[in-house]
Amino acid sequence: MSETARPDPIRPDATADPAAPHALRRLASVALDALADGAAARGGPLPAGGPEAVAARTRARCVPILPEEGLPVEEALYGVARAAAEGAADPSAPHCVAHLHTPPLAVAAAADLAASALNPSMDSWDQAPAAAVVEDEVTAVLARLVYAGRPAPDAVITSGGTESNLVALLLFRERALAAGARAPRVFVGANAHHSVRRAAWLLGLPEPVVVDCPGGRMDPAALGRALAAHAGRDGSPALVAATAGTTDEGLVDPLPELAEVARAHGAELHVDAAYGGPLLFSERLAPRLAGIEHAVSVTYDLHKLGWQPVAAGVLAVADTALLEPLSLTADYLNADDDTEAGLPDLLGRSIRTSRRPDALKIAATLRALGRRGMGGAVEHCVGVAEEFARAVDAHPALRRHAGSPGISTVLFRPVAADALAATAGEEAGDELVAGIRRELLAEGRAVLGRARVADGDGRRRLWLKVTLLHPRTTAADLDALLKLVAERAENPAPAGTGH
Amino acid sequence: MSETARPDPIRPDATADPAAPHALRRLASVALDALADGAAARGGPLPAGGPEAVAARTRARCVPILPEEGLPVEEALYGVARAAAEGAADPSAPHCVAHLHTPPLAVAAAADLAASALNPSMDSWDQAPAAAVVEDEVTAVLARLVYAGRPAPDAVITSGGTESNLVALLLFRERALAAGARAPRVFVGANAHHSVRRAAWLLGLPEPVVVDCPGGRMDPAALGRALAAHAGRDGSPALVAATAGTTDEGLVDPLPELAEVARAHGAELHVDAAYGGPLLFSERLAPRLAGIEHAVSVTYDLHKLGWQPVAAGVLAVADTALLEPLSLTADYLNADDDTEAGLPDLLGRSIRTSRRPDALKIAATLRALGRRGMGGAVEHCVGVAEEFARAVDAHPALRRHAGSPGISTVLFRPVAADALAATAGEEAGDELVAGIRRELLAEGRAVLGRARVADGDGRRRLWLKVTLLHPRTTAADLDALLKLVAERAENPAPAGTGH
Repeated sequence: MSETARPDPIRPDATADPAAPHALRRLASVALDALADGAAARGGPLPAGGPEAVAARTRARCVPILPEEGLPVEEALYGVARAAAEGAADPSAPHCVAHLHTPPLAVAAAADLAASALNPSMDSWDQAPAAAVVEDEVTAVLARLVYAGRPAPDAVITSGGTESNLVALLLFRERALAAGARAPRVFVGANAHHSVRRAAWLLGLPEPVVVDCPGGRMDPAALGRALAAHAGRDGSPALVAATAGTTDEGLVDPLPELAEVARAHGAELHVDAAYGGPLLFSERLAPRLAGIEHAVSVTYDLHKLGWQPVAAGVLAVADTALLEPLSLTADYLNADDDTEAGLPDLLGRSIRTSRRPDALKIAATLRALGRRGMGGAVEHCVGVAEEFARAVDAHPALRRHAGSPGISTVLFRPVAADALAATAGEEAGDELVAGIRRELLAEGRAVLGRARVADGDGRRRLWLKVTLLHPRTTAADLDALLKLVAERAENPAPAGTGH
Repeated sequence: MSETARPDPIRPDATADPAAPHALRRLASVALDALADGAAARGGPLPAGGPEAVAARTRARCVPILPEEGLPVEEALYGVARAAAEGAADPSAPHCVAHLHTPPLAVAAAADLAASALNPSMDSWDQAPAAAVVEDEVTAVLARLVYAGRPAPDAVITSGGTESNLVALLLFRERALAAGARAPRVFVGANAHHSVRRAAWLLGLPEPVVVDCPGGRMDPAALGRALAAHAGRDGSPALVAATAGTTDEGLVDPLPELAEVARAHGAELHVDAAYGGPLLFSERLAPRLAGIEHAVSVTYDLHKLGWQPVAAGVLAVADTALLEPLSLTADYLNADDDTEAGLPDLLGRSIRTSRRPDALKIAATLRALGRRGMGGAVEHCVGVAEEFARAVDAHPALRRHAGSPGISTVLFRPVAADALAATAGEEAGDELVAGIRRELLAEGRAVLGRARVADGDGRRRLWLKVTLLHPRTTAADLDALLKLVAERAENPAPAGTGH
């Protein structure tokens, strides 16, 4: 290897040549320096000052994006990475807890660097001879995690839950059309992620039937009534899209009951477990997903509970034959004679063509943690949410939503918002909640989420949301966050300044 | 920074914390060591032995993917990265020239490492405050590259040409439906990438009308006839999907003429410039895409000519209002009151939800190369293809396809295949060509592409294809490749062994 320190400047068109990663080694180090400097300058979980201030600081480091003449390559890179880090809502920070926005593991990010440098594309064997094998092993493991009892389960890697749900509905549509059906129909809970309805729109399917979700979970009786009405109308195929880990509350639909209702009406079940799927790594928590094995397909993401950099989506199917509608021949990628001669045909594994090998980072992570490590980290997040919920209960100025915690999500609300709602109306209470979130964002102190969810009295109120995904954050790390919210609720900023 | 050398082992659940990138720095170094070791063990542009041997070697390093107990993290990572590198079809190698499979630049791969570590997700401001600004600047530049003369062009980042074409057809469908049309119809050249027809299928659109492409380019007269027949039948909206840089030949459709024919028939024009789009960076080559500015939308990829790790797709649109059908409200990501309070709404920029900030690597690359550097690198690839074409012409054992080079693609065929076709039939000649490609793949010597394309006499024959995308490879680097093909054509492997 001729890649010991060399004094020459790096040319901007130096490739990430794996055989001589001199340039990449130097530039990766520049990027990591920029991350550290940017994070130090930021100080908190997100940059202070709000959108306009962040935009101005970011532009000062990056613009012009396309100068007529290039800059020195280290300078060009440092500016972008530094700006991104200084202006990040950083999921590695304990008080960045708004979304299913995960702190990636170092092992995953490092494996992703190998993916970037090698750049295999997963659409043909002659672009990804080994990466295709890794993907094959990874998808086998991820399929068996859901469908241990089936003879031939399978899984494909997607860009996330949205693509997984899209492919699930596409496969359903094609099964229905192949069977001569006219109007295949999707049944979805009011609690479902927007991507299910968006997938139906994209695919030209009829608007899904929305099923009631009292208490945030799909109601089996309501589903039964909806399916019965559908069967009476036209009797064409139905797919029930249930959720295991709702975005707002982290709740799991009653899968065994829904599977039974679906079966009784001749409908298929799909489960969007984008959030909850990785509970299956934990022996203790897997029972919460009991019934998931009845689904024809299951969405889950490893860029949520799974600590991968985006993207690391999965769609598992109960049998590999269910993927057949994705198969496709393109002479330049999988000509029949090449396939007959033994070159593996990869094209039918995705709706994308060029495709990044997201399986590499997943493989490195699963090997490093093992099933026990993955399960333990999931249990950690769930445990922190339970502790956090108790801390909310113990705080006189805060009120927990009765349905929390769900998986690792906790909803809570300042008592001051309830008091305001009682005197000045519900809207005033909700505005206090929304304003606190925006103030803490603008000040760079915390990234809290929000959810509008029915309260014990049935009224839909606005709640603060924390989604606990950090594999090492403890509940004690979050005490300051509770204190911050409580203080702010007692001393809200004047109206109009909270953004 | 507390990240000087520490003796403790890295925990498998160490995050890629940008504030203290100690673990990531160590593991990135492990990954780069694995790349170098793997590339050295491979020796050539791809691993020798064919699919089964590669699979066995890969599995030996990676399986089990999910052990019950995790491995030491360095070992877990090294095994995966080493296997991927040893078994890569390596686009940094001069003889890896089959596909639009680019050697990524070191600056892009390093910026991508920052993206992995920070893990901003592009679906809400509070997950990507600065990355959203970088993306905004990048898309503005990429839109203006195509639509310099328009008042409000725009662009979105996609997972590649396939998603760009899908979104282009989706926007067309929604415009048509909003106007009350019944059956919007896509017109596509026989030379188009399969993703255009696949997008129509996915979206539930009628099967596209396929237009003749004599000489590999869409025929304006044939398009005119097809559009006239369509208008006579039902008169609903039409979208012509032309290609600037075909996959097989690198040819550019006659855009000015197609634009004029489309205009005359009231049809819209979309251009799939996944391959050719970056010609726009070069003052000298941009005129080859003249007419592209008449398109309502343009697909292009920076993971082809643009040297980005996958994914770096772009869909440019002539006016930002054209993106309106993508807009979407999800209370947890872009509630109305948050948007009114000034939090930028990012959700309508993609059909995905969680989304990796591919704009970061693009920004670092464009800044490092500048417009002149980008254009110069494109010109280099085009120039090497021209030289390579001359070298084929000068070689007595090889025959160039008369339409080559197109952009940076050259088709050629051993004279021995023509001779065999004359004596033993066309199929025998084609089998010789396909066999040479598979032999060189199996031996790990070269990654050549293939294309079935009409010859001068109108017969569709099989050709070897090289797609020259390396910003530093020279034609001299390819002399050995020509020699290898010519030798192999004279001494083909016995039938049945070439895989």
